Amino acid sequence: MARKNAFYAQSGGVTAVINATAAAVIEQARASKVIGKVYAGRNGILGALTEDLIDTSRETPASIRALKHTPGGAFGSCRYKLKDLESSRREYERLIEVFRAHNIGYFFYNGGGDSADTCLKISRLSQDMGYPIHAIHVPKTVDNDLPLTDVCPGFGSVAKYTAVSLREAALDVMSMCSTSTRVFVMEVMGRHAGWIAAAAGLAQDEHNSAPHIILFPEIPFDREKLLKKVEQTVKKHGYCVIAVSEGTRYEDGTFLADAGTTDAFGHRQLGGVAPVLAQMIKAELGYKYHWAVPDYLQRSARHIASQVDLEQAEAVGRAAVRFAEAGRNAVMPAIVRGKSKRYSWKIAEVSLERVANVEKKLPRNFISRDGFGITPKAREYLAPLIQGEAFPPYRNGLPVQARLKLQSVKKKLEPFEV
Amino acid sequence: MARKNAFYAQSGGVTAVINATAAAVIEQARASKVIGKVYAGRNGILGALTEDLIDTSRETPASIRALKHTPGGAFGSCRYKLKDLESSRREYERLIEVFRAHNIGYFFYNGGGDSADTCLKISRLSQDMGYPIHAIHVPKTVDNDLPLTDVCPGFGSVAKYTAVSLREAALDVMSMCSTSTRVFVMEVMGRHAGWIAAAAGLAQDEHNSAPHIILFPEIPFDREKLLKKVEQTVKKHGYCVIAVSEGTRYEDGTFLADAGTTDAFGHRQLGGVAPVLAQMIKAELGYKYHWAVPDYLQRSARHIASQVDLEQAEAVGRAAVRFAEAGRNAVMPAIVRGKSKRYSWKIAEVSLERVANVEKKLPRNFISRDGFGITPKAREYLAPLIQGEAFPPYRNGLPVQARLKLQSVKKKLEPFEV
Repeated sequence: MARKNAFYAQSGGVTAVINATAAAVIEQARASKVIGKVYAGRNGILGALTEDLIDTSRETPASIRALKHTPGGAFGSCRYKLKDLESSRREYERLIEVFRAHNIGYFFYNGGGDSADTCLKISRLSQDMGYPIHAIHVPKTVDNDLPLTDVCPGFGSVAKYTAVSLREAALDVMSMCSTSTRVFVMEVMGRHAGWIAAAAGLAQDEHNSAPHIILFPEIPFDREKLLKKVEQTVKKHGYCVIAVSEGTRYEDGTFLADAGTTDAFGHRQLGGVAPVLAQMIKAELGYKYHWAVPDYLQRSARHIASQVDLEQAEAVGRAAVRFAEAGRNAVMPAIVRGKSKRYSWKIAEVSLERVANVEKKLPRNFISRDGFGITPKAREYLAPLIQGEAFPPYRNGLPVQARLKLQSVKKKLEPFEV
Repeated sequence: MARKNAFYAQSGGVTAVINATAAAVIEQARASKVIGKVYAGRNGILGALTEDLIDTSRETPASIRALKHTPGGAFGSCRYKLKDLESSRREYERLIEVFRAHNIGYFFYNGGGDSADTCLKISRLSQDMGYPIHAIHVPKTVDNDLPLTDVCPGFGSVAKYTAVSLREAALDVMSMCSTSTRVFVMEVMGRHAGWIAAAAGLAQDEHNSAPHIILFPEIPFDREKLLKKVEQTVKKHGYCVIAVSEGTRYEDGTFLADAGTTDAFGHRQLGGVAPVLAQMIKAELGYKYHWAVPDYLQRSARHIASQVDLEQAEAVGRAAVRFAEAGRNAVMPAIVRGKSKRYSWKIAEVSLERVANVEKKLPRNFISRDGFGITPKAREYLAPLIQGEAFPPYRNGLPVQARLKLQSVKKKLEPFEV
């Protein structure tokens, strides 16, 4: 039996370790007896639609290894949501045509909730169309909002970046609060779920009081309560460090900061809640402020990636290929946490039907009673995820990245208008 | 002859390595045969004015060593400018009284241009008042704007942070530009001098095109020229990464973003030029944008400090004590770069009269002809400063910081109203 090729694509916002997953998929597939070449979609699923495939077999083993310390999405990612089978039928059929034309029997889709849904639909449609594809979703998202997996690869590193950066900046603020900045606001990602905001809480320990306040999307914003807490904190500590989720909103659902634009998935584009909050505090309490919005820096900070996160990112990639080899379909490798006190984890298989379109929010019992901090339960969950420093190699003072050839596969089909 | 004690204070904005200078001063003074105890000013010079002195002799050698990997200002810093001898005479005299009361014969002031000026004045007044103090200024500033020293300790680490972060974020933007963010704007510190902005340029090499545009305070902002360059860049690369100095201003001196408030030194408090620029580009060219303002994160990022910077921060601390032991006065240890191609440096002594109130701007020949990039000359200057990774120790996934006792010295004088 001729080997079927594999298609791998990165979807949505990239992470510090998504390329480590790519490397693991490619390395594991190279060692496989049933999988042929791995074609990567240039710019994610768009590459499949436009038949713009990258032949990863042209890359050296060293280049593939170097992906493990390269942030961003090495093959390109995209925000392009395939809708339901009815309204996006043309696209789904095109995907199957491209897969058929290039003898692709395995589809590895490396993304978050939206791509899990797409992956499931492709699996189903491929069967209807008589060209069955083994569709495996490979989890990735800094938002950590996928269900059934204990954690999403990418999250541990952004969590580590956030906790490290907040602790460092808080020491700066503390140094100077007698005459300068009293209130420091650091904005973190997490549109609908406060996982990253919660990770900021790891900066706090018996010797470090910051962050004094965390604002979560899960807790409706209460202006008066916040102002009171800020004032109390400044009186007690001399300064106040706040971690605020970009998704923080009022009771009625209005975001504190709302740029008013939407992305391809129909999500509102957020950003800039930190200055809004800082100015609100200044206006009411008069404290001098500074604010930081690390934005993409947080999700691409490979230089301070978590070793645990890196290992999990590789593990889901390898497992995805093993699932495909075993003939599995419409599944996702999930990370399962061991029950013992000492942190351990393994990979399990979960059905995409249970994953797609389910968003895992931060549990209420991870948030302190007053809504401004994390509980020991949250800490117990989060702390193991930031363990270990997966430093990249450096040359001339800067981290070294993979350099890929990214050679295109010869097209066989007519062009397709996306 | 009874030993005279030393007074050490941190001034102005702290850096990732200012505590390494503090540690070097304390360690070198402990080994000295002429210097007694080192008292640190709690919250900088305010601690001297209010007689709030920290007895560093109560700290263990291990705690002092740990300062070398602790960001922020361990003894507290402040923004408090002593003005000329006439209008601030009361404060200057109080300083001398406090020094006299605590048998302090050596004054180490660790700061930027303003503190060099204060240091010089204290030296002069102490002689007038018949209690001569050996006043040594110890250079520190992320702004890198002190004259006569090749570089200011603190700058190399913020330069490294900036180049590393920009390169990582640019890979993220590049991954997704086909369907998402086209323009990414990263704001960096540097109120009047574009040194940090220039350091962002180190992210660019033969494999990395970003940053495509750098905006310096030294180059008047030209809206039309910028928009044209952004458009050209997006057409060529698919995306455009901009590093913008907080001090970027129009020809007439108006800052692009101006919070309208001033700090204790009378400087206008800036912040938020990145969103202003991003929105301007969006309005004119329609590109989807993201922006980042790392703010304090950049100057406290000890986790990615430059080894060269760390070594220089320690060297100026040790040299300051040696100068004091040698009876020097109103001087500053400066870093002198070797003439050979291979980077080398040593410490020299410079007179504070030549340092105080002189601001070292980025030379025009460090900025490319079009005003949007750095020249090979700038690169030659900057590249050695970010070499080496001075990683701090980690515990439970987070960097470890010094924990000091910070015990106060018993007061001997009447309270003083600041």
